Amino acid sequence: MTQLYLDDLRPGQTFVSGSHALDEGQIKAFASAFDPQAFHLDDHAAKATLFGGLAASGWHTAAITMRLNVESGLPLANGIIGAGAEIQWPAPTRPGDILHVESEVIDVVPSRSRPERGIATIVSRTLNQRGDILQILTARLVVHRRPAAT
Amino acid sequence: MTQLYLDDLRPGQTFVSGSHALDEGQIKAFASAFDPQAFHLDDHAAKATLFGGLAASGWHTAAITMRLNVESGLPLANGIIGAGAEIQWPAPTRPGDILHVESEVIDVVPSRSRPERGIATIVSRTLNQRGDILQILTARLVVHRRPAAT
Repeated sequence: MTQLYLDDLRPGQTFVSGSHALDEGQIKAFASAFDPQAFHLDDHAAKATLFGGLAASGWHTAAITMRLNVESGLPLANGIIGAGAEIQWPAPTRPGDILHVESEVIDVVPSRSRPERGIATIVSRTLNQRGDILQILTARLVVHRRPAAT
Repeated sequence: MTQLYLDDLRPGQTFVSGSHALDEGQIKAFASAFDPQAFHLDDHAAKATLFGGLAASGWHTAAITMRLNVESGLPLANGIIGAGAEIQWPAPTRPGDILHVESEVIDVVPSRSRPERGIATIVSRTLNQRGDILQILTARLVVHRRPAAT
């Protein structure tokens, strides 16, 4: 992939990642380590909750989204470095979902104090194989400017 | 822990979690699975980056924050269910950091359409043993109302 600098980014640019197949084992392993709640761990108990069945931790969806963006979604020259983000989970992520990420550049602002970098605001939507939007992440990323030719 | 319902929450209430000791092995394992970038995986390569040394993925800090809040930080009766959140990482999380979470209720809004629940906005600050704030998470949580006595 071509590695992009801040100078290469424009509002409206879009990127699409590869995909990740999620299964029950992955959901329960992540939940055991980081979000040990019944609706992420126990199929039967999950049915009686707001989720109505086993669902992945939102932080698991966020972590998979990061992996997809790092590996194939967002080819930023200095890597993906978040200063902060807003995250929403409009629908649960389920066992059997095949996830991919569609990203769009929203805003590009060179830093005034640090001429070698700036902030790009990028919204990344994580969808399953049916097109359900499972997560909307609006991230402020630190992106380097293209080094001057020497 | 007493399990709290929406009716029990008031702006200004605070909660403090237990702690989690983070080491290099955990940082690299999480990064290998979900955020495979040099500054989270390779001590030497990390020195030349914006982080100036090995740092945990922000999503790892978020996942540890969730675990601490689930296990000891936020005793909500129906569990911790996020509708969405804003997240900032003001400083890197490093190997050797001992993390804990300090949370404060900011706002409590009963649902108009669903009388059995509402939304609590809770800010959770993740700190290390020196008091550095590593993450600020402002989460909108779905919280059940206390069931009517029968």
